[in-house]
Amino acid sequence: MFKKILIANRGEIALRIIRTCKEMGIKTVAVYSTADKESLHVKFADEAVCIGPPASKDSYLSMPNLIAACEITNADAIHPGYGFLSENAEFSRICAENGIKFIGASPEMINKMGDKATAKDTMKKAGVPCVPGSDGLLESAEQGRKIAAKIKYPVMLKATAGGGGRGMRVINSDEEFQKAWDDARTESKAAFGNDGMYLEKFVEEPRHIEIQVVGDQFGHVCHLSERDCSIQRRHQKLVEESPSPFMTDALREKMGAAAIKGASSIGYEGVGTIEFLVDKNRDFYFMEMNTRIQVEHPVTEEVVAYDLIKEQIKVAAGIPISGKNYLPQLHAMECRINAEDPRHGFRPTPGKITTLHIPGGHGVRVDTHVYAGYTIPPNYDSMIAKLITVAQSREECIVKMKRALSEFVVEGVKTTIPFHLALMDNEDFKAGNFTTKFLETFDFSVL
Amino acid sequence: MFKKILIANRGEIALRIIRTCKEMGIKTVAVYSTADKESLHVKFADEAVCIGPPASKDSYLSMPNLIAACEITNADAIHPGYGFLSENAEFSRICAENGIKFIGASPEMINKMGDKATAKDTMKKAGVPCVPGSDGLLESAEQGRKIAAKIKYPVMLKATAGGGGRGMRVINSDEEFQKAWDDARTESKAAFGNDGMYLEKFVEEPRHIEIQVVGDQFGHVCHLSERDCSIQRRHQKLVEESPSPFMTDALREKMGAAAIKGASSIGYEGVGTIEFLVDKNRDFYFMEMNTRIQVEHPVTEEVVAYDLIKEQIKVAAGIPISGKNYLPQLHAMECRINAEDPRHGFRPTPGKITTLHIPGGHGVRVDTHVYAGYTIPPNYDSMIAKLITVAQSREECIVKMKRALSEFVVEGVKTTIPFHLALMDNEDFKAGNFTTKFLETFDFSVL
Repeated sequence: MFKKILIANRGEIALRIIRTCKEMGIKTVAVYSTADKESLHVKFADEAVCIGPPASKDSYLSMPNLIAACEITNADAIHPGYGFLSENAEFSRICAENGIKFIGASPEMINKMGDKATAKDTMKKAGVPCVPGSDGLLESAEQGRKIAAKIKYPVMLKATAGGGGRGMRVINSDEEFQKAWDDARTESKAAFGNDGMYLEKFVEEPRHIEIQVVGDQFGHVCHLSERDCSIQRRHQKLVEESPSPFMTDALREKMGAAAIKGASSIGYEGVGTIEFLVDKNRDFYFMEMNTRIQVEHPVTEEVVAYDLIKEQIKVAAGIPISGKNYLPQLHAMECRINAEDPRHGFRPTPGKITTLHIPGGHGVRVDTHVYAGYTIPPNYDSMIAKLITVAQSREECIVKMKRALSEFVVEGVKTTIPFHLALMDNEDFKAGNFTTKFLETFDFSVL
Repeated sequence: MFKKILIANRGEIALRIIRTCKEMGIKTVAVYSTADKESLHVKFADEAVCIGPPASKDSYLSMPNLIAACEITNADAIHPGYGFLSENAEFSRICAENGIKFIGASPEMINKMGDKATAKDTMKKAGVPCVPGSDGLLESAEQGRKIAAKIKYPVMLKATAGGGGRGMRVINSDEEFQKAWDDARTESKAAFGNDGMYLEKFVEEPRHIEIQVVGDQFGHVCHLSERDCSIQRRHQKLVEESPSPFMTDALREKMGAAAIKGASSIGYEGVGTIEFLVDKNRDFYFMEMNTRIQVEHPVTEEVVAYDLIKEQIKVAAGIPISGKNYLPQLHAMECRINAEDPRHGFRPTPGKITTLHIPGGHGVRVDTHVYAGYTIPPNYDSMIAKLITVAQSREECIVKMKRALSEFVVEGVKTTIPFHLALMDNEDFKAGNFTTKFLETFDFSVL
């Protein structure tokens, strides 16, 4: 087992990793930029090294500074957390070259899963369902109609140079195809000077449902069921839960098997997440694989009674997993408490927390690096806490979350707490009736 | 279901009850003495009523004040928590007379279990094992020797007027009997002016293991397994856990069945705890029954995923329980964080908490009513927080507790945290090798 782990990250995830290391009897080294001197992750580590100024590129993203910090503290492994260098193949390689175990994926694995097209190809070959469509650009409307007939309507025509919805058309039937093709090409040509088009099956009423996997160095891969992360704003997850209210036993079995197949096909080692889109018919399609721990991992930990960071460290140290899959025994939900003003487009609100009361009691878990008197720096992401509740049913989990949110007091900066409180009262949310588009029509005036 | 519950208590248990009421959609009324104006239980209730000065007898024990508070707030039920009036038959009766549901036992039940001799008689009749001995006073040494031969040595000879160990003798064999009899009588006569003696089986290497039961209004009683509360100082519990490291499946089945038999025999309604002494041979003996929620209930909640306060309110409202028993799925432990100085005989240390950091993260639960800036009044018991950890094994639970204790920062007053930290490092404790006498030989110099 490792003797000393350097945590190449900050904030709550750095503290989260320190906690598990302590429980495992492993010494920890925190690193911090000058903006993070007062963060709890610095206070709770056995050692702490300043690695540079506030700008991430000169501190948390500076590979030479991190490697130097390992050398001066004699750390034998690096845990990258999420974000920053956690999915950086070069960093993974440099760690290995310096004899430091990178607690994450190998450079090859990161490269394979980091590029979307390569990842999709790899998964497709492994038999994992991907969104069907044209392989590359369409040569003609005629070719597009043939593919559409095969993958079935509705389909989505997309400009290869597109963005912001321009050069994009949802097509519901063969009759609509020609007009959509002409319009989209004209629009794309005008907007981007390029009328190249490709075609994908349109995923109706999409949900973001991901499967947590763990693989060891001996080829065993297991899954720990799903997390539903459909409540997002501009692809930023706000609320995650397990199990998904949309899940069925049969679908979990299929998605779990697909995730294991995908991860096994690349000989995956470590914890990872395979993200899927699930449509209204419960057909699911591979989106991407994250080769690292995720922000929302606690909801899985709560429903399967499993310490994912511990397991991640164990498999990195060469300890085999049991290989059995884990099914949710309870219901857990996480609300991301961000220093953002939900009444004004979630604009960041860095600043000093003057008063803080963190909820507690039965079924409540809080992961946070902040405290009363702490100043949230403007340099990094705005998440200040993760509030997790766990209960025997989704309904109880929601009332518990509402209760915990109502106890959560943060003064000095605006937070996303009012949004979460409103969400817990939303009838569609309570009924489990939502897709990734949910926030587009959410009534923020109730906040 | 009740519309509004008045919580006739203070501190963490008042807050604990408010939290569950909130989750159940029930309004809450906090009551407080003038010493408790700033407690969190007052801030988090829907309404709060001052019921008197700091002295308990004029506030938390004042039945007229409590009934008046119910009347002015229109509360339809009272939750008494633990301590104070929670096992007061008169209060239970007065509540009923005033049309207020007392969320606890009936006056008859409280009376039956409140008097030790009556409780023992009742349980004996129901077939629950009790410490065998003489029924009442011994008439002669000869009678004592006959009983001792029947219940088997070692036995304990006790002065009926005794106390503080005087007039008490452990007797290991028939040969020792006469001398012990003579000595104890002489001693007792001198000390108390009374030489009445009775005899009990001496419980060797006793452990305090209690069974949590729940009964409904329809005659169903179930058990939720055991808690081991052997770590006590002068009968004050300091650490509790579930399951007991001394437990076996067979013993749990026997003790669970005995607890259900005992509770059923009196038609018990509500949550209750049957406390047993378990000796080195895993023979167990009824000690007493608590007809209320206990301080240490969270360890049970964590291992069986069950909200005991919710269940207590539900059965009081006439909702039936399922009737099935609950077995521990995980391991949980609670450390009582008291404002007491363990380096100086656990003397109370009321005063102002200047700095407070409460631990969090995976498997950590904290129930507390205090915060930074809060002043602990000298008028009540000294518990300021319950720190509960839960994990897949006892070993993991202990390392998690150690980690959480090391994060727990209380400045301004001394607390029991250093004692708990030393306990978690004690080899006998870690091995599960302890009895109720454990603290008598504990080396406090390591703190």
